[in-house]
Amino acid sequence: MDELMMREHPTHFIQTGVIDCDVHHAVPSIQALFPYLTDRWRDYIVEHGIKGLEPNYYPKGAALSARPGSELSSGHPPGSDLDTLRRQVLDPWNVQYAILNCLYGVQMIHNEDWAQAMASAVNDWQLVEWLDKEPRLRASMVVASQNPEQAAEEIHRLGRHPGFVQVLLLVRSEMLYGKKHFWPIYEAAQQYGLPVGIHAGGMTGYPTMPVGWPSYYLEDYVSHAQAFQSQIVSLITEGVFQRFPALRVVLLESGFTWLPALMWRLDKNWKGLRREVPWVDRLPSEMIREHFRLTIQPLDEAPVPEHLLQTMAQLRSDDMLLFSTDYPHWHFDTKEEALPAKLPPGLAKKILTENARAVYRF
Amino acid sequence: MDELMMREHPTHFIQTGVIDCDVHHAVPSIQALFPYLTDRWRDYIVEHGIKGLEPNYYPKGAALSARPGSELSSGHPPGSDLDTLRRQVLDPWNVQYAILNCLYGVQMIHNEDWAQAMASAVNDWQLVEWLDKEPRLRASMVVASQNPEQAAEEIHRLGRHPGFVQVLLLVRSEMLYGKKHFWPIYEAAQQYGLPVGIHAGGMTGYPTMPVGWPSYYLEDYVSHAQAFQSQIVSLITEGVFQRFPALRVVLLESGFTWLPALMWRLDKNWKGLRREVPWVDRLPSEMIREHFRLTIQPLDEAPVPEHLLQTMAQLRSDDMLLFSTDYPHWHFDTKEEALPAKLPPGLAKKILTENARAVYRF
Repeated sequence: MDELMMREHPTHFIQTGVIDCDVHHAVPSIQALFPYLTDRWRDYIVEHGIKGLEPNYYPKGAALSARPGSELSSGHPPGSDLDTLRRQVLDPWNVQYAILNCLYGVQMIHNEDWAQAMASAVNDWQLVEWLDKEPRLRASMVVASQNPEQAAEEIHRLGRHPGFVQVLLLVRSEMLYGKKHFWPIYEAAQQYGLPVGIHAGGMTGYPTMPVGWPSYYLEDYVSHAQAFQSQIVSLITEGVFQRFPALRVVLLESGFTWLPALMWRLDKNWKGLRREVPWVDRLPSEMIREHFRLTIQPLDEAPVPEHLLQTMAQLRSDDMLLFSTDYPHWHFDTKEEALPAKLPPGLAKKILTENARAVYRF
Repeated sequence: MDELMMREHPTHFIQTGVIDCDVHHAVPSIQALFPYLTDRWRDYIVEHGIKGLEPNYYPKGAALSARPGSELSSGHPPGSDLDTLRRQVLDPWNVQYAILNCLYGVQMIHNEDWAQAMASAVNDWQLVEWLDKEPRLRASMVVASQNPEQAAEEIHRLGRHPGFVQVLLLVRSEMLYGKKHFWPIYEAAQQYGLPVGIHAGGMTGYPTMPVGWPSYYLEDYVSHAQAFQSQIVSLITEGVFQRFPALRVVLLESGFTWLPALMWRLDKNWKGLRREVPWVDRLPSEMIREHFRLTIQPLDEAPVPEHLLQTMAQLRSDDMLLFSTDYPHWHFDTKEEALPAKLPPGLAKKILTENARAVYRF
């Protein structure tokens, strides 16, 4: 292996520092949010006996839900302890910045006012318990998308704080994100230069597959890619990026190997049907390359390594992929597996740091 | 271009004859089915003033709905005239066999008995008006999947007729096709050596995207690929192929470029979650390669031709793709565009005839 190859190998860059764009910290218990809630909502939670809002996206017993060692002796959920996070992610990966994406069930609440109160509480808790304590951390702002106007208010409340670098939505939304219903969120996000991150999870009134409810968690997890595909198609066709040309959308825990085929299919049918959406004034794939970014883990590895590299090249952009560990979820065993080996020269560095620096304000 | 290349070029094989696995003939009017209906249902249709069951999958004005010249002076829908079909498909393409897939709205009827009566009528009409008149034609058997036991009875009624080579389902079903509800159909199909064809279209109670209803036909058409992906995942995980090991499923008008990424994602998560579905006793991708076939048109072409060839190679099987024109729908302009140019040696012939001969009983 020559020196260039050595220098280009992903592990080299991990030694020089990475930006981890998808780390999950957890609310240890609903009581941890009480300091950030008004009496009304504290009383509401106590009087209703609400034990917590932890979603069940990652079933507790499933191997992918928590990497070995991330369980805490306190009994609190994996990811809820800062020192453990430092020891398992920030130090060993030589993290320059890690972006915290809090998957608490705020988006599942049907009461808009309560949801908004919980979103603000989670954000204030993130500030005090995480961002103020650790300079390598940044966070996504949790918003209650149930009411986009209220979500925009939360973005205005915190949009200037340098600790927040993104607005967090969940991919399984109550309706497609391209709809004008959600545009107040994009307007506010664009105003502060914040990308909108769309993470796996969420709750919609609809089955997780467009032909009904599957039987198994395996099907649910695999079909998440379809929800991401749907959101891309919707955001493009509804004209969100014509209205908000500076907006960027980061897909988190989406996978990306399905994207070239989606771009081909969308381009082709746009050519045939574009009179339906005349505001979409250039190839959807061009807009996708400009406006979308995707985290690299979990990575749907191909059995033939060359096939994965082909698929990355089929994106026709080196700017789209962002490094992530998805901690504490468990998708790979060793650092060497976090990125595909033998990336083209320069690409590892782009994925590990440069692409994130271009899309996030650090 | 050397002689091998010349011989391997798709147009060469088109000259030697093709098997067209997806041709759409149309019921000219609901009255054309009256000879094949009992008094009860004839009266029912007349008394209710039912004008027809044409679905609106292909909006009449959309360019992709009907290739130029397929419109008929009779005013009947494109594809409803045998001589025109001969002139536009069977003769110029030098068709050895063409498989007729009738997209009439039988699957949209909520009355199971009426649906079953209409399915039988369509099949008898196919026999008399098409199969008996033209030896190059074969047909898919239309079944009313609303009631799988009745559908199985229809398969038993016609399963030995050599004109029928497939059982036709539509991809947007009322529930996922892996569910045991549908297994009587697979049992009967396997008994007669008939593959189950799953074609684009259909009607489910659910939105066409798993996060809600899109606004545009463009989105609907693009998202059809997700319905196909869902059906593959469901058929694999529910154990259909362990129970019916000889069953083959042909995806019709599905596209195929999304399949490698789906196989990677399904394999990966099966490895992590297989204890949920212990009957899935080998890699899902292996089962997909053995049990699924896909028609090649409409083809979601890549802007870089090499990328499409990579994707075909990523299937890791030369046996899966079947030639189709999707007549009278319009997906390509010239014969040269019906297949990707520069296919690997032998592959064009497999796609144009051999793969179809292996899966269908001709």
